[in-house]
Amino acid sequence: MIQTELMVKLVLDRWNASLKNCDNLLSTLNDDSLLNQIAPGKNRGIYLLGHLIAVHDDMFILLAMGQKLYPEYYEPFLKHAYQTTDNLPTISTLRNCWTNQCEVLHQKFAALQPDQWFEKHMAVSAEDFTAEPHRNKLNIVITRTSHLQYHLGQFTLLK
Amino acid sequence: MIQTELMVKLVLDRWNASLKNCDNLLSTLNDDSLLNQIAPGKNRGIYLLGHLIAVHDDMFILLAMGQKLYPEYYEPFLKHAYQTTDNLPTISTLRNCWTNQCEVLHQKFAALQPDQWFEKHMAVSAEDFTAEPHRNKLNIVITRTSHLQYHLGQFTLLK
Repeated sequence: MIQTELMVKLVLDRWNASLKNCDNLLSTLNDDSLLNQIAPGKNRGIYLLGHLIAVHDDMFILLAMGQKLYPEYYEPFLKHAYQTTDNLPTISTLRNCWTNQCEVLHQKFAALQPDQWFEKHMAVSAEDFTAEPHRNKLNIVITRTSHLQYHLGQFTLLK
Repeated sequence: MIQTELMVKLVLDRWNASLKNCDNLLSTLNDDSLLNQIAPGKNRGIYLLGHLIAVHDDMFILLAMGQKLYPEYYEPFLKHAYQTTDNLPTISTLRNCWTNQCEVLHQKFAALQPDQWFEKHMAVSAEDFTAEPHRNKLNIVITRTSHLQYHLGQFTLLK
């Protein structure tokens, strides 16, 4: 295995393991418990799940992998982050979106060649990328894995 | 910059950013608030801080970078994880340990050449490493960054 493949594997393995941990956690939490706050006065499980979907949806754009699957989640789960909002999707809807989004991301990721992960992502200009080659697609996965882990630590408090 | 250096930078940048986030968070939390539980019936801040120190201490061993700085933290913060224990160090002591440990890790990491991050870590045999070259030192940093992020998501609930 050449080193480029190895590096991509390191990052994607961690990303996939985090998604798996989230799946396992979601399978242990019933819909009622996802309506609870993770701690008094803090976010509810339903918010965290929608927030993860909204953030991961943005990866399609950043990685030039197509359009968002659920653009309607930007408003309630990103723009108005951490505010209680009405008219949220049902837990059942969010669960289905999560599962579907994971599958589509998996397919898109699998279609990328190792070298392509070292190309610039879409939020950096070609000029800036020349000076800052670490602002590549792989870095998007690294930072989003960190973000996911951060919220997994909160999610688990609902158990 | 050659690709090996770039890959190491991606991982170490994220690790350092997580440590920085933890520092910033600790600076906003007074000693009393670190004695609180992150959520009713869940871990206290003091436990999380000791747990992070114990886990990061193990990195010295896994990365062949010397001995643990605080081996006495293994019992209360890893072996008996998630149990309330008496005779814990003071918050002030833990803060000093955290700061010192971050500095020593930083020095050790800086002394490693990029290629050395792709050598096997100490918990895998040479034989297994031949078949599983992803079990390298860089992977230890990736998984510990994930672990740190998980608990940072909990730590922040103390604010």
